[in-house]
Amino acid sequence: MTEIAVSQTLANEALEHVWMPTEGQARGTVIVVPTVMGITELERGFGEKLNGWGYGAFIADTFGKKFRGAARDVMFGELTRLRGDRAALKDRLLAILDTARQQQGVEAGKIAAIGFCFGGQCVLDLARTGTDILGVASFHGLFDPPGLPANPIKAKVVAYHGWDDPMVKPEAVVALGQELTEAGADWQIHAYGHTGHGFTNPHATSEIGIPGVEYNAAANRRSWQALEDYLAELFG
Amino acid sequence: MTEIAVSQTLANEALEHVWMPTEGQARGTVIVVPTVMGITELERGFGEKLNGWGYGAFIADTFGKKFRGAARDVMFGELTRLRGDRAALKDRLLAILDTARQQQGVEAGKIAAIGFCFGGQCVLDLARTGTDILGVASFHGLFDPPGLPANPIKAKVVAYHGWDDPMVKPEAVVALGQELTEAGADWQIHAYGHTGHGFTNPHATSEIGIPGVEYNAAANRRSWQALEDYLAELFG
Repeated sequence: MTEIAVSQTLANEALEHVWMPTEGQARGTVIVVPTVMGITELERGFGEKLNGWGYGAFIADTFGKKFRGAARDVMFGELTRLRGDRAALKDRLLAILDTARQQQGVEAGKIAAIGFCFGGQCVLDLARTGTDILGVASFHGLFDPPGLPANPIKAKVVAYHGWDDPMVKPEAVVALGQELTEAGADWQIHAYGHTGHGFTNPHATSEIGIPGVEYNAAANRRSWQALEDYLAELFG
Repeated sequence: MTEIAVSQTLANEALEHVWMPTEGQARGTVIVVPTVMGITELERGFGEKLNGWGYGAFIADTFGKKFRGAARDVMFGELTRLRGDRAALKDRLLAILDTARQQQGVEAGKIAAIGFCFGGQCVLDLARTGTDILGVASFHGLFDPPGLPANPIKAKVVAYHGWDDPMVKPEAVVALGQELTEAGADWQIHAYGHTGHGFTNPHATSEIGIPGVEYNAAANRRSWQALEDYLAELFG
């Protein structure tokens, strides 16, 4: 696999994304937005999987290069800061999307975004901007709306959700359904029983250490299978 | 395609099921429980699709042979009667399952059931009995519980659901999630935005004539794709 570091400076913060192009012609590009822990081996593995399906993978650094490999408490502090200003987060996400579009071999009209936990919220927020990417997929993302003026949503949206997620209750699922309906989005929510937050991460329990945050092999397999179908729908 | 009429008498009513075995060795058997309109060309088409995937299809006659091709009002009257006695419906479904198991080439341990509208409710009710079939899939099914003593659910459960279904509100989705969780089921709900009841039936609007009951090409395609993945999971 090829891995290219892509530097970007935003509001005096140095970000460093990871661009994993395909060997040959790509079916399209998938932006991968990591969990609260930032870019780790987990996301590189996701990138390899996407490469194997024929998609370039652009792993977004939403936190900043200086946080790479930082301790959990540091990352949770930064998460709180980023989630505390959703307008600034929106600008950051749109700037990252622009940078992804500039990479060699990326077709600007053939982009989707997937995200995990906080990254799931990020891709929902990206769709909420009204940007014209093909689609987004949230894996155990946070659903709370940004409290910004609502836009019609052009991107298709899917959320893979653990029903027992302690951070996203059934009321939040119903609210997301209503929000996406009102925004005119083409949307789906796949809910998995007996499944908590962070279900795609084999190290969720040790890494996050919050009850209800844990790997679930069935939900992991089912959501990735659903993603493969969804990307085939988006990119043809 | 081979089509075999299977007669069964239950409580003095003559049922006539349609058994569509595969040409060769089957991966397993899928019971198909029709909508309020009973067995029609729609279900035969589903049977052909299942045959194409390598599964035998047993299309269940829940209403009785004398209702074959009956008018909508007659069928809705019979639906109300069947839904009015869920204990009797349970017995009928278990008897039909027994009959399916007796067909030549059916392996008793390799059975799943899928259902549509009222048939969706039937397959949920079949799972609710605690029977040990591999799994059930409800397409735009009704979710209201039968009001019978609850059993641990052994079958896997998935429900493909249109979020705008006028007969199944978001509260009913949340209630089903809770019920299936309490019953210990391995469950999933896939919700589709801007999608009503009857979304797999191209003739839903003309056949049923109720606002909010209509075909949806995207939800139809997505739910059948999801079913193909799900059956592969169930039958290996």
